[in-house]
Amino acid sequence: MKDITIPGGKDADKARKLMRVFSPLTGAEMQDEYPVARSEEVQYAVEQAMAAFPVYAAMPGTRRADFLVAIGEEILTLGDDLIQRAMAETGLPESRLIGERGRTIGQLGQFAHLIREGSWVEAILDPADPERKPFPKPDLRQMLQPLGPVAVFGAGNFPLAFSTAGGDTASALAAGCPVILKAHEGHLGTNALVSRAIRLAAERTGMPRAVFQYVVGDGYITGRELVAHPGIKAAGFTGSFTGGKALLQVANERPDPIPFFAEMGSTNPVVVLPDAMASRGEVIGQQLVWSFTLNAGQFCTNPGLIIVREGEGMDHMIAAMHEAVLARQAELMYGQGIRRNYDQRTRDMLETKGVTLIGKGPDGGPLDGQATLARINAVDFLLQPSLQHEVFGPFSLLVVCPDDPSLQQVLHALGGQLTATLMAEPSDLEGRSELVRELVSRCGRLVWNGVPTGVEVSPAMHHGGPWPASSDSRFTSVGTQAIRRWVRPVSYQNLPEAFLPEALQSHNPLKIWRRIGMEWTR
Amino acid sequence: MKDITIPGGKDADKARKLMRVFSPLTGAEMQDEYPVARSEEVQYAVEQAMAAFPVYAAMPGTRRADFLVAIGEEILTLGDDLIQRAMAETGLPESRLIGERGRTIGQLGQFAHLIREGSWVEAILDPADPERKPFPKPDLRQMLQPLGPVAVFGAGNFPLAFSTAGGDTASALAAGCPVILKAHEGHLGTNALVSRAIRLAAERTGMPRAVFQYVVGDGYITGRELVAHPGIKAAGFTGSFTGGKALLQVANERPDPIPFFAEMGSTNPVVVLPDAMASRGEVIGQQLVWSFTLNAGQFCTNPGLIIVREGEGMDHMIAAMHEAVLARQAELMYGQGIRRNYDQRTRDMLETKGVTLIGKGPDGGPLDGQATLARINAVDFLLQPSLQHEVFGPFSLLVVCPDDPSLQQVLHALGGQLTATLMAEPSDLEGRSELVRELVSRCGRLVWNGVPTGVEVSPAMHHGGPWPASSDSRFTSVGTQAIRRWVRPVSYQNLPEAFLPEALQSHNPLKIWRRIGMEWTR
Repeated sequence: MKDITIPGGKDADKARKLMRVFSPLTGAEMQDEYPVARSEEVQYAVEQAMAAFPVYAAMPGTRRADFLVAIGEEILTLGDDLIQRAMAETGLPESRLIGERGRTIGQLGQFAHLIREGSWVEAILDPADPERKPFPKPDLRQMLQPLGPVAVFGAGNFPLAFSTAGGDTASALAAGCPVILKAHEGHLGTNALVSRAIRLAAERTGMPRAVFQYVVGDGYITGRELVAHPGIKAAGFTGSFTGGKALLQVANERPDPIPFFAEMGSTNPVVVLPDAMASRGEVIGQQLVWSFTLNAGQFCTNPGLIIVREGEGMDHMIAAMHEAVLARQAELMYGQGIRRNYDQRTRDMLETKGVTLIGKGPDGGPLDGQATLARINAVDFLLQPSLQHEVFGPFSLLVVCPDDPSLQQVLHALGGQLTATLMAEPSDLEGRSELVRELVSRCGRLVWNGVPTGVEVSPAMHHGGPWPASSDSRFTSVGTQAIRRWVRPVSYQNLPEAFLPEALQSHNPLKIWRRIGMEWTR
Repeated sequence: MKDITIPGGKDADKARKLMRVFSPLTGAEMQDEYPVARSEEVQYAVEQAMAAFPVYAAMPGTRRADFLVAIGEEILTLGDDLIQRAMAETGLPESRLIGERGRTIGQLGQFAHLIREGSWVEAILDPADPERKPFPKPDLRQMLQPLGPVAVFGAGNFPLAFSTAGGDTASALAAGCPVILKAHEGHLGTNALVSRAIRLAAERTGMPRAVFQYVVGDGYITGRELVAHPGIKAAGFTGSFTGGKALLQVANERPDPIPFFAEMGSTNPVVVLPDAMASRGEVIGQQLVWSFTLNAGQFCTNPGLIIVREGEGMDHMIAAMHEAVLARQAELMYGQGIRRNYDQRTRDMLETKGVTLIGKGPDGGPLDGQATLARINAVDFLLQPSLQHEVFGPFSLLVVCPDDPSLQQVLHALGGQLTATLMAEPSDLEGRSELVRELVSRCGRLVWNGVPTGVEVSPAMHHGGPWPASSDSRFTSVGTQAIRRWVRPVSYQNLPEAFLPEALQSHNPLKIWRRIGMEWTR
């Protein structure tokens, strides 16, 4: 861990502020120290990224693709050191981190594939019509172009897949944007290792050195410096509502506001309908408990609200959930603050009028999150909007609706969500077809008879819902469409072939899918 | 003009505030009075739009297309009444307004065609893979869905094509979003006529009544009420930087920020290079004078900066421009404030250090904008950033760059632009290939040997540039891609065919273009 360099490289100064990482595994601070970036170093990093931008953006997609694949290879080369360090820093189990590493490398590979294939630039060509009256129609062609240097704020709960070389970094690098990462305080060692892998990959594939940089510092102060810098043209964030909202405000208050994409989590309501409950209530209950307690419930797609339309089988389902919760071993949470917050929020919930405890899992160590399931009736839920706020951890609240009107009212009261889930038989939607529309209008992804956790990285994934789930429901932070966050269209009018980007040249040298008027061709 | 209804319909009250329209043609206020919407009426209008939204959004694209076509028909049925009223209210010439009406109807027709064809929803399908290890891959399908009620702020300089039934309204209605228009104070009578046409079209095609509403009121106060209302989910604005920025702030400061699209104009730099100037400097000069003085220069794409790389033929070009400006008859500006502002800004420009007058056109009536061309050298331009601010009217500033480095510096200093234009021979770019990249990084549309005025309505048009040209460079306000401003993607995971929107059903009943993974098929 000695090769950490800070942009600007003024490491000589002994008075520099240093950070250490708390390990949930040992309950103590780890030895390594990470120098905090000074303001002028943040500025310097942005200037370097600005200088790297035109060089990097001008590289063909195939070369950027090689770089992304190389990052994956270098991450794999880090071997067990990376997994052990991430375990020590986050308390997440080994199998989960090995899986997450696979997801991270797979994600880089998908973006590499996307930009090697090339059609992602959404080329549209309108041929000229010199004979048109009263004015000739010009030749117009448009394609997506990268915005510029991007700031990324990694997530604490995904030290690999949503952090240093995670989805935000991978999609921005794929788009042609240099990245400056604000390293997450919870896994600075993991970050240093992955950053080294990225740097080695950049060297190996001949990328400008400043294509990727990171800074260590206080989330808000350093984050603010980054987001406010005129050289930063967009930013991505995964984390809390408070953090996301504060940085969004910085982005909006710049003299030139920039796109700021914050994925801030949600309660991911699951609606359980009578026929499904009658036929397989126990299985549904077990599935849901598994989903909201997995890895101490530290997922932004955790099903924190289970909205049940009362009916035959509800008692069986609840009994099954009760049993599953009691059997659920507590798991480590990734930080002390996260754990304290979980306890506080769970306590608040259980003290809220109308909330009763269904069951608690066995108590664990001081950093373990104890699985907790509570219930409330629809009327009490509707009267207390604070019950809608996410409890980050292995907690879920079952809302019992005695009839369809109360179910409708509860759904109508919900804020924006990353996901919404229907546990239903087709027969459940007879006379309730409005439910689909009602849920779709509030979420970014509608799940049928599944659990919301487990966010597929794929072209049709949309991970981003109406406020407060994300700051901008029109963009996704997971899946290949995430690249769209870092680009804007540019039109070229009557440009000679020689000066057009290859993607727009008439003979389609890149052999990509393009729209001619309304038709797609290749 | 007696059929104006205000949402909520409390017209009985005699104490209501009334507005009149100033006519540039007569230099006096017109007789008709337009009741100003009260705060509760704005609220009521939004509530009506919210109620209309699910009904309207659920309609098939073909029915919404019929509605858009019917609006065009009803506008045409208004006949000469509309043209005469628009002339009286804006002072724009008849031929221009007839042309603009054609553009407006054409635009509605293009959006009708777009949604009848149906592929605009950008359907993406990822088939399931139940055999995948360690977890089965779910079936994922995504498509664009409308955001909800939209507020539109019409432009003063385009009383038809960018106002009541203009591009913002047409694209939002096409997407499935009800519209509430803040009528432009400058053409309230034109607005009332076009609004009646929209209402008739809505009735005729069986649309919910509140699919379109308008309110009359003070731009900022009424505008603020609209944009701040929780029921409004996005807004579009065409107008001044000050107005756009103020309303953008309202949108950002809501408890749930919403997308706000402001097209705020720019100086649209034209770069004239030596070989082009040597071979056809006079023609270029004439073209540019025509472009910046047309309709008193009241275009957001007016070429307000002409950046010349000094060389052979420059004197000829400037002489031709001088002659063209002197011959240019002054034309009416559309408002008193606009004219006063033009005079003030022109005076300020001419008093700025280093600025010298090339020529002024003949003086006209008190509301005419006098064509004015000035020049400055690169060094003085670079020292005074205020020279970059748009002068709305028939003014342009020629910036003379003695060499390539100073040209580079001038380009580098430019802010975001709707357009940038190259007047060049291919030989001009030998050794100057960086120019294309430099201009593309600052604009939404790059024009080769043409004028930036005349914004084609077509699929590949992008009318939106980096700040301060627009509030969000990623979206266009002209062309069919403008529909993307009012939608967000939603993913459907494992939904049974019966509950999927038609656009996502496996057998593709709408026969639209869809992406299966990375391949487009139909």
